[in-house]
Amino acid sequence: MNALNPADLRLLSHTTSDGVTTRELLLGDVTATLWSPEHAAPGTPLVLLGHGGGRHRHHPSMSGRARLLAESGFRACALDVVGHGPRPGTPYDDEQVDLLRAAFETDEPLGPVVEPYNADLARRTVPEWRALLAGLLAVPEIGAARVGYWGIALGTAIGVPLVAQEPLIGAAVFGLFWSSSLVDAARRITVPVELGVQRDDELVPFADGLALYDAFASTKKSLHVNAGEHAAFPRFEAASAVRFFERHLMA
Amino acid sequence: MNALNPADLRLLSHTTSDGVTTRELLLGDVTATLWSPEHAAPGTPLVLLGHGGGRHRHHPSMSGRARLLAESGFRACALDVVGHGPRPGTPYDDEQVDLLRAAFETDEPLGPVVEPYNADLARRTVPEWRALLAGLLAVPEIGAARVGYWGIALGTAIGVPLVAQEPLIGAAVFGLFWSSSLVDAARRITVPVELGVQRDDELVPFADGLALYDAFASTKKSLHVNAGEHAAFPRFEAASAVRFFERHLMA
Repeated sequence: MNALNPADLRLLSHTTSDGVTTRELLLGDVTATLWSPEHAAPGTPLVLLGHGGGRHRHHPSMSGRARLLAESGFRACALDVVGHGPRPGTPYDDEQVDLLRAAFETDEPLGPVVEPYNADLARRTVPEWRALLAGLLAVPEIGAARVGYWGIALGTAIGVPLVAQEPLIGAAVFGLFWSSSLVDAARRITVPVELGVQRDDELVPFADGLALYDAFASTKKSLHVNAGEHAAFPRFEAASAVRFFERHLMA
Repeated sequence: MNALNPADLRLLSHTTSDGVTTRELLLGDVTATLWSPEHAAPGTPLVLLGHGGGRHRHHPSMSGRARLLAESGFRACALDVVGHGPRPGTPYDDEQVDLLRAAFETDEPLGPVVEPYNADLARRTVPEWRALLAGLLAVPEIGAARVGYWGIALGTAIGVPLVAQEPLIGAAVFGLFWSSSLVDAARRITVPVELGVQRDDELVPFADGLALYDAFASTKKSLHVNAGEHAAFPRFEAASAVRFFERHLMA
């Protein structure tokens, strides 16, 4: 893998619909999308969106959050993690996805497969996010914006090490991931954090959510626990995340 | 104590300021206040506000929440718990308050004093709330409104048994109280609940918050954990409570 040069960021097509401008981006082989409120001024705060495992930057979970953010005056940006969307994976990625499917089918715990695989995806994706962010902030129309990060599940597995390394990120929303691969990075995070977990999560034990919450060094940190299994994560947590970014990136 | 008759509810003075009408109420010896958006229609949803220990219906924590609610289109109502505000306590109340002060001064755990005393206050206050609510809903300008309850600390000690007994209450926000005196009532609560606790609460152990959360029979229940001690309970949880009532009483 060659190091990405932020100056190589290319802003491709853009379309505007219902007050939101959607612009396709390319940095090396990293495909990404930037959503902005129409006529957004330089310095408009920017939230990086990390997609979940098996999803991609144009999944409705990304475009839906981007629209919520744009309607509240934020820009949002999502990239495709390697092996997701149009980006091919390596034979190692294919093997890991097969292992994951097998664990699902045999009802084995997913953590022992997901945690090391997603940690590897994080090692590959964190430098991509940092180069993309540097490239974005160098675009005059984007300017020196305040930056947040919002990602659940795989988006948390990548986001926790990203926020620990990237000093430009000033607030982060995470959720629904195991703790053992993340607590070391979480201990280096001091910016405000909101973490969402499910009390009856059949995949990620509740104790992992509490351990991850406790690991953050942030003095401002909220844990939102909701009833139900993994997939019952409520939609109103997205509105809560937007208000969290309003408090920390707009005040 | 004589049983209160809801038909005896008296609506006393009212004033309007910045779009909120404040009306003083009296039912027997129970002093109460109703806040309404100016020109509110019959059926406007109503949130009952339970004050904290040592406070009263006109404490800023009550009038502040009432204004937040009125600005979002709710009515709000608070009453003075016996021994609070203008209402005299009994010799038993005086004795309990002395015990509480002594426990504070000697750094003893407060739970063994607060829990039984507040349970006694709840036994006296729940019938007052129920009579007041029946009286309010019989006022034509209030009408058959949907009803919520919002109380922290003593407001939770009274609110949990109230919501367990009063079928007219359809959603409730609680926080910052011990569990052992409340879990039995909590197990009878099925309406949506939002519970706020502090991770580092030096008065109420975090395990109590989790036990109370787990006890609610509600399928829709959220636990909001924030960093810091008892008094660090963040102000943004009030805005979260208002949105909770919007979801459950206005949808």
